Amino acid sequence: MSSAAGELRAIPIGGLAEVREGDRVGALIADRTTPRDGDVVVISHKVVSKAEGRVVRLDSVRPGEHAAELAAELGKDPALVQLALDESLSVLRAERGVLVCETRHGLVCANAGVDTSNVEPGTAALLPLDPDASARRIRAELREAAGTAPAVIVSDSFGRAWRIGQSEVAIGCAGIAPLDDWRGRPDASGKELAATLIAVADEAAAAADLVRDKASRVPAVLVRGLEGFVSADEGPGAAALRRPRDEDLFR
Amino acid sequence: MSSAAGELRAIPIGGLAEVREGDRVGALIADRTTPRDGDVVVISHKVVSKAEGRVVRLDSVRPGEHAAELAAELGKDPALVQLALDESLSVLRAERGVLVCETRHGLVCANAGVDTSNVEPGTAALLPLDPDASARRIRAELREAAGTAPAVIVSDSFGRAWRIGQSEVAIGCAGIAPLDDWRGRPDASGKELAATLIAVADEAAAAADLVRDKASRVPAVLVRGLEGFVSADEGPGAAALRRPRDEDLFR
Repeated sequence: MSSAAGELRAIPIGGLAEVREGDRVGALIADRTTPRDGDVVVISHKVVSKAEGRVVRLDSVRPGEHAAELAAELGKDPALVQLALDESLSVLRAERGVLVCETRHGLVCANAGVDTSNVEPGTAALLPLDPDASARRIRAELREAAGTAPAVIVSDSFGRAWRIGQSEVAIGCAGIAPLDDWRGRPDASGKELAATLIAVADEAAAAADLVRDKASRVPAVLVRGLEGFVSADEGPGAAALRRPRDEDLFR
Repeated sequence: MSSAAGELRAIPIGGLAEVREGDRVGALIADRTTPRDGDVVVISHKVVSKAEGRVVRLDSVRPGEHAAELAAELGKDPALVQLALDESLSVLRAERGVLVCETRHGLVCANAGVDTSNVEPGTAALLPLDPDASARRIRAELREAAGTAPAVIVSDSFGRAWRIGQSEVAIGCAGIAPLDDWRGRPDASGKELAATLIAVADEAAAAADLVRDKASRVPAVLVRGLEGFVSADEGPGAAALRRPRDEDLFR
């Protein structure tokens, strides 16, 4: 696996229609742009969740006792807390207005990824059930519609334990090596690198986020210049970016 | 503060000479490229540390008893552990070969940022003493040498608590808003965003990292397309990205 040699470009894909349940996101993107082989298409999970019907009406949720208690403690909507608990394997922290969960996929994030921004008022978007499968499906749709097979990243913005602000990460991917492993390779002075393992897919998601206006409908971004990480096969997916629970030092 | 409107480009700045103590990093960069006002120059902290003389010969370090014990437990070099402890306010975790520290700047990272890659064998680089001051100084050097004042980010690669692999973050910056605060602003459907606060400087550091070969001498990258975040004044620096200790839920 070689690193990117030249320049990187992140190009917003404008003009996407509002996505509805059952829409083929890959085909919608191919209507607006023709990605090249070697490109990476980064898609905000929100439109993927919408296409997959992972949007819930809040008034359809009946919060249980635990959710109601937590919601009162945290100053959150009980329905949202119930949804977050339903999406979670475990709760890492529930204090000071913050609910940090491990999702059923093994992602650690606020509110188990349940999110009310940029969806219809009175609804909440859940994360895709299997974001790596979503990325593979969208890649297949792109191949069918555009005749090319760029890599696909499904992204979400995650908070960080010790840093202020969210950064976009890859929750699903297909056709891209999510990690660039330099361990055992030589540095500039010829010395073996001990720990260098770069989260390429997360960094690509972050790059894409910089051209995505949070209030606009630019859910997809083309990232060009990562050909060295893009492959014909699907690769291990973003599952490779989740730290296994038994290596977690901060639970 | 407005988001980037168009395209983002990350352009590696090649051909930089090996940096030595006392070098003016901003002038060296201006020798290789002429950044425009509105550009962001992202610089790996390693060259900043070298210019600032923050490189230590390992055989000059006398590990104390605590460092020697920790090093034995973790399978690390006692001199490196002593340096990490010297750089730290506190140790968050020391287990399974991992030493996670809070540096004197308030950064939480492995080994307090002490690093032996891409430095002379037998030496280790420490983080700059005040990375925001480093960024401001390099910006002034760029202004003097190139006649323009791009923003400057000093970056390092940090591991993450729940994700595999490192991602580049901003440990210092000048002339750029490190955070894009959407809290209280409307989303696409007009609903007020509750928690959206984007770590722009970290995402810019991550984007830059994608064009930086870990084994080559490409320590500086030009990021173009973030004009909306670049300012004439220095801004709050990357200090604004450090979560205060009393808000830390994972200590």
